[in-house]
Amino acid sequence: MNSTEEFLNFAKDVALESGKIMMQYFGKDGISDYKSDDSIVTIADKEVNSHVIKRVRDAYPTHAVEGEEESYVKAGATHIWVCDPIDGTIPFSTRIPVAMFSLALVINGELEIAVTYDPFFGDLYHATKGGGAYRNDKRITVNNIKLDDISCIGSQSSRPASLSLLSNIYEKLPVKNYTGLGSVVRASMAIADGLYTFYISYTKPSTVCFIDMAALILIVEESGGKVTDMHGNRIIHGKEFEGKIISNGIAHDELQRAISENCLKSVD
Amino acid sequence: MNSTEEFLNFAKDVALESGKIMMQYFGKDGISDYKSDDSIVTIADKEVNSHVIKRVRDAYPTHAVEGEEESYVKAGATHIWVCDPIDGTIPFSTRIPVAMFSLALVINGELEIAVTYDPFFGDLYHATKGGGAYRNDKRITVNNIKLDDISCIGSQSSRPASLSLLSNIYEKLPVKNYTGLGSVVRASMAIADGLYTFYISYTKPSTVCFIDMAALILIVEESGGKVTDMHGNRIIHGKEFEGKIISNGIAHDELQRAISENCLKSVD
Repeated sequence: MNSTEEFLNFAKDVALESGKIMMQYFGKDGISDYKSDDSIVTIADKEVNSHVIKRVRDAYPTHAVEGEEESYVKAGATHIWVCDPIDGTIPFSTRIPVAMFSLALVINGELEIAVTYDPFFGDLYHATKGGGAYRNDKRITVNNIKLDDISCIGSQSSRPASLSLLSNIYEKLPVKNYTGLGSVVRASMAIADGLYTFYISYTKPSTVCFIDMAALILIVEESGGKVTDMHGNRIIHGKEFEGKIISNGIAHDELQRAISENCLKSVD
Repeated sequence: MNSTEEFLNFAKDVALESGKIMMQYFGKDGISDYKSDDSIVTIADKEVNSHVIKRVRDAYPTHAVEGEEESYVKAGATHIWVCDPIDGTIPFSTRIPVAMFSLALVINGELEIAVTYDPFFGDLYHATKGGGAYRNDKRITVNNIKLDDISCIGSQSSRPASLSLLSNIYEKLPVKNYTGLGSVVRASMAIADGLYTFYISYTKPSTVCFIDMAALILIVEESGGKVTDMHGNRIIHGKEFEGKIISNGIAHDELQRAISENCLKSVD
């Protein structure tokens, strides 16, 4: 077995195990806690994150883990597992079944393997660099819908910082059907699956946001879509980026143009 | 059996039947169509709406039905069943399990009975005027969280018309945790269940929006919460209203004040 296949099987196993932990807590009272920035975290986020670190340390002692709740730092590690234990913590913590596990392997700075898991449907998505994207081992591709097509569905973040930006952008775009979801990973899987056309969100310049983006970037790209920051740059591990545009590729440039024409005005 | 109980049992039966129809179509390809305003409708919306009309006509020939997709007009009817066959059509049509059936009975202009149904969890909510609100026959109540409480979770519409309003309001509010959902009924049930604190949305002055509001108004009020338009007025059958604020009651006045201080500026 080559290492890509071995790493992928490992990541899939960890995803399924993590989904089981999620479902043990989903819908239960008293699972929520608050971080120093007052955002929500649940017992399940912490337990899944710990589980991933334990599994990586046992299987690959030289690898590092960057997790949303906890990291395992290994100086000079060439292999870094990037994990968002639960993307969609607000829905998850309020008994709404829109939340996903997300895990990617970065080797020498490049995204090589990505796995996401939706425990409510038992949907396991994966991608390997150059190897395509899959849901439950069935190949998936983005749709070929343009922004002005009647069947174009967009989704976006509901963070306040996004809203002022988005309201300005939407005035310029011909899109009719928007929705909010509460999980960028879930929305991105809908893009990779050909159901949604795009997702946009404003986030301040940061490197930390890469954690929930890692797996979805590779899965969306391998399904034929495109992921960039709001300036149209690729999002890369360890490099600061501002905002995110995730799309089927066709809609990307028009979205990015609308954002660059409106962002300065609205982000102020 | 008194008529309230009889009507309630009828409404519950129709809700469960409608949920079955929803699940027959959920996740299937080719179920979506587009209305004249380019918004999405699915075969399931139409079939559920027809089913409700058929059931009402068979059981109560003197009653009328106001549905999102189809109505059954009966001149001079004192009893009107108000039905949103699927609230959350975008999530539903894109295989995201956030969508609900909604049915209310208006007698002489007053909301008397309300039923909503989430077929993904099998959650049947109901309320009768003065009789309390229930999920699966278990009494539910709103939470007692204030806007500046750490555990305050808000949700909002992702319609472009809402976003500019909301982004202005959010600047004035101390709330930390927001999410979008794609279904006002689902978000309102989370409020009635004590999980969310509020939901806000901007919609232009209209009487039509009452259709998706009817059942949730009674269920939220009977769980101890409050529902008004953006000017703080009660939302009444047949009367035009602008925007919606749905809350646990405690957060309501502060929200409404933030909206009235910001709406003129942002709605323009």
